[in-house]
Amino acid sequence: MNFQRKRIVVALGGNALGNTLEEQMRAVKRTSKALCDLIEEGHQVVVVHGNGPQVGMITNAMNALTREDPDQPNMPLSMCVAMSQSYIGYDLQNALREELRNRGFLRTPVVTVVTQVRVDQNDPGFQNPTKPIGKFLSKEEADKQAAKYGHIFKEDSGRGYRRVVASPPPLEIVELDAIHSLVDAGKIVIACGGGGIPVYLNGNHLRGASCVIDKDATSCLLAKEIDADMLIILTAVEKVAINFGKETVQWLDSLTPDQARTYIEEGQFAPGSMLPKVQAAVNFAQSNPGREALITLLEKAHEGICGKTGTIIRQ
Amino acid sequence: MNFQRKRIVVALGGNALGNTLEEQMRAVKRTSKALCDLIEEGHQVVVVHGNGPQVGMITNAMNALTREDPDQPNMPLSMCVAMSQSYIGYDLQNALREELRNRGFLRTPVVTVVTQVRVDQNDPGFQNPTKPIGKFLSKEEADKQAAKYGHIFKEDSGRGYRRVVASPPPLEIVELDAIHSLVDAGKIVIACGGGGIPVYLNGNHLRGASCVIDKDATSCLLAKEIDADMLIILTAVEKVAINFGKETVQWLDSLTPDQARTYIEEGQFAPGSMLPKVQAAVNFAQSNPGREALITLLEKAHEGICGKTGTIIRQ
Repeated sequence: MNFQRKRIVVALGGNALGNTLEEQMRAVKRTSKALCDLIEEGHQVVVVHGNGPQVGMITNAMNALTREDPDQPNMPLSMCVAMSQSYIGYDLQNALREELRNRGFLRTPVVTVVTQVRVDQNDPGFQNPTKPIGKFLSKEEADKQAAKYGHIFKEDSGRGYRRVVASPPPLEIVELDAIHSLVDAGKIVIACGGGGIPVYLNGNHLRGASCVIDKDATSCLLAKEIDADMLIILTAVEKVAINFGKETVQWLDSLTPDQARTYIEEGQFAPGSMLPKVQAAVNFAQSNPGREALITLLEKAHEGICGKTGTIIRQ
Repeated sequence: MNFQRKRIVVALGGNALGNTLEEQMRAVKRTSKALCDLIEEGHQVVVVHGNGPQVGMITNAMNALTREDPDQPNMPLSMCVAMSQSYIGYDLQNALREELRNRGFLRTPVVTVVTQVRVDQNDPGFQNPTKPIGKFLSKEEADKQAAKYGHIFKEDSGRGYRRVVASPPPLEIVELDAIHSLVDAGKIVIACGGGGIPVYLNGNHLRGASCVIDKDATSCLLAKEIDADMLIILTAVEKVAINFGKETVQWLDSLTPDQARTYIEEGQFAPGSMLPKVQAAVNFAQSNPGREALITLLEKAHEGICGKTGTIIRQ
């Protein structure tokens, strides 16, 4: 058997973690089982999770507080992302620890690192934000919040108005050195939650940025920086497909970066859904000949590593 | 000069971090300057901070959300503590990083670790909680919340009703191994925020506990576990005093554990204020002959280490 112990970055969707705390507590159990299957095989696992529903809930709570107590300042989005990192990290590190102990790993430490990720404040996305976050509002309420906080709102498919923010690419993981040390020391690390707390440089100061960073893009950056062997991007389908939703649908076992780019140009992958995942996978796979990316379901991650399912992206 | 590079755990009060985010952003700057004075001298610094006002704000926000959206489940106190760790940790690690860079330390990493601390679920404090947290409520509102969430409320000095929770002693720092690795690797670590996320063992599962852990007690435990040379407990006075508030007030330059115990028995130190600080200092100092604790003002920490001010507790 040609088993190879791999260093793996796993990108986990925020939607897969549930919309409420109860849902999250069930979801982290399921997630931990899948991750421990990899750890039990000897792989080194670093987890990056999304935070869409969670940062939405925290933002709603902070806005509700401001309505009740006008003395409370409006909470910046970057701070809500920060809070979502420990909101999710605490539960996830706890569930991972429990699952590890259930399997006899009594001393494998799991740790969540509060992580800032630097973006470019001159990214054009800040001028024309497109990523919707938070609740649907009436036009009146949206106008009020726009005037009060300077937020930008867009009408969303007849369902009301939603705040839109920029989603610039991640440039630097500020706490990389600490993450790297912990991974090297054999800890299971949860980092860059929600794509990282978005910040930009202002002299020696890092200022919070009003944006969200795509967690798949940040996972790719982290995987490259810690020299991972594999990036696993977990999603709601077992394999990547072309002609998705058509009779001619074709599920892909593997993809080269070149093939993927052709399909991207054909518009085969939905923006905001499969497209950023394929882009992150390609970016990682082409960064070094030994590196490969896997896109599959959470429950299929272990089979996917063994080459039995999922879509592998490699040169 | 008999300079000795020390490993120091610094316990920082949550009140010193301000009541709002704006106050916090100013407070972390001031705090970072004082901490960097120690780091610049070559000391290894680990920071434990309180979270009183911050966890209060987060709890209020989560309650406000539940009032607006009854589908949202009530947020457990342990989860609010978790969120307070990244709410404070993000700002503090950012300010420390900036101050270090301003002084030419371009590569010293600062990292916040989401930390759980185990307590005993059979601690008698859970039957008779005494630590007030959160807002003052009317009797009617307190009764309503008591019925809805099972919280316990007590009348507080004619000012209204406040929720009271247990404050059991910390037994184990769950993420100790990761904290230890980071400290050994030379990182500046922020850990055990708010005394730690309180949890208790239920088989292999750690369940969130409805309590708060005294951050001075947790600082003492952490300092012992990582074999620190010194525990610095920062407070609102420059030195510990006996006969405080009287004409016979006497400010103390040093204290032995035996002297401290005598003064404690005399009731010299206010419960919930100086008493837990002196207790933590004594506990640390008597754990090993080489260990000493310092109680002083934030701005005097550096002078205190040099023996110029503050109250030193040593055997």
